Amino acid sequence: MTGSPVPPELYAEVLHFYARQMQALDGGDFAAYAATFTADGTFKHSPALPAAQTRKGIEQALHEFHERFANDPVQRRHYFNHVVLEQQEDGSLRSTAYALVLTTRPGGRPDVGPSCVVNDVIVRESEGLRLKSRAVDHDQELAAVAA
Amino acid sequence: MTGSPVPPELYAEVLHFYARQMQALDGGDFAAYAATFTADGTFKHSPALPAAQTRKGIEQALHEFHERFANDPVQRRHYFNHVVLEQQEDGSLRSTAYALVLTTRPGGRPDVGPSCVVNDVIVRESEGLRLKSRAVDHDQELAAVAA
Amino acid sequence: MTGSPVPPELYAEVLHFYARQMQALDGGDFAAYAATFTADGTFKHSPALPAAQTRKGIEQALHEFHERFANDPVQRRHYFNHVVLEQQEDGSLRSTAYALVLTTRPGGRPDVGPSCVVNDVIVRESEGLRLKSRAVDHDQELAAVAA
Repeated sequence: MTGSPVPPELYAEVLHFYARQMQALDGGDFAAYAATFTADGTFKHSPALPAAQTRKGIEQALHEFHERFANDPVQRRHYFNHVVLEQQEDGSLRSTAYALVLTTRPGGRPDVGPSCVVNDVIVRESEGLRLKSRAVDHDQELAAVAA
Repeated sequence: MTGSPVPPELYAEVLHFYARQMQALDGGDFAAYAATFTADGTFKHSPALPAAQTRKGIEQALHEFHERFANDPVQRRHYFNHVVLEQQEDGSLRSTAYALVLTTRPGGRPDVGPSCVVNDVIVRESEGLRLKSRAVDHDQELAAVAA
Repeated sequence: MTGSPVPPELYAEVLHFYARQMQALDGGDFAAYAATFTADGTFKHSPALPAAQTRKGIEQALHEFHERFANDPVQRRHYFNHVVLEQQEDGSLRSTAYALVLTTRPGGRPDVGPSCVVNDVIVRESEGLRLKSRAVDHDQELAAVAA
């Protein structure tokens, strides 16, 4: 919490960026999600898994993950909260946000969890904000470390 | 996700508009909620129900819905997330947002769900932002369609 | 909902303030959380408890609360939503926001609740925004009053 302050306009822009990005992911548009990363972007979906790299690699990793649910139709929603931004010396933004996964099956109530923390590095490219990297921590593992 | 970009000031204004609107709804102030619509506004609370129309009609539909809970006091909260705005050619804003319903009964923990998506058309009137229409989709039905 | 309107830049600034504050609290940095209050700030964590006063008092109250969990490691997350701001005549801001507590234990899914409402008075000091007071209401008690 010691980085230089971030203008409120940029804060609102990042919230909107996340909104579009996560609606694309939850809507199954993996190409659009991958396009929110830089060309060399990395996406570490879970501490236990290797990071996916490049837009093509990220898109493919998401397709593989969702093939597991081919016979189990679900609507997944990622709720974000408490986005904290830090301006870094190289011009990039460090972003830390809460992310809660909700999963609804036909006719049912949402299952809640896992509760996660998203660690992003955001850069501005000519087309707009892009993720240079995203690494996701899971609370059920953090709590285990603390135990 | 192809509309013209929306200024961050407008994005923050819409978030604040939603905050006031939904605190009014959850606080049982249905007249205040209805007043956030245009005079000819429409509110489609569920895909299975006809849309309520005009502020009077919206207020009445909400009273009828809540009469069901007359002997079952609950505190309902609508959590919004990932608001995506698109500027439309006619000057209105198209807004798509996640909405999660939480319901607490005396002494209890909140029930979670349903998980919804809110589809709004927002216009600016002299008094401020107003909803021209709101239509709510429910994930438990979307997942059923996908199945 | 009748206060004078709040500029969208201030709205985004308050959201960011809350994000840093609550990540500090959930991260166990009680000194950083207490530092988001004014020197004479008050924190009423629950209607049934007396308010903690001053930064030292707030920090100590949080340590005492968390000692209960010394043998029960948990990762707690406070999700905020629908922040409503009102400019007050004395220059302070009145803020009302939803707050949902999520608690994750090692290897488990998050427990959901309680669902709360946070009532803050925010002032601007030379170092930035600070809470003059925070009082938290709990929905399971509000619903009981309504019953």
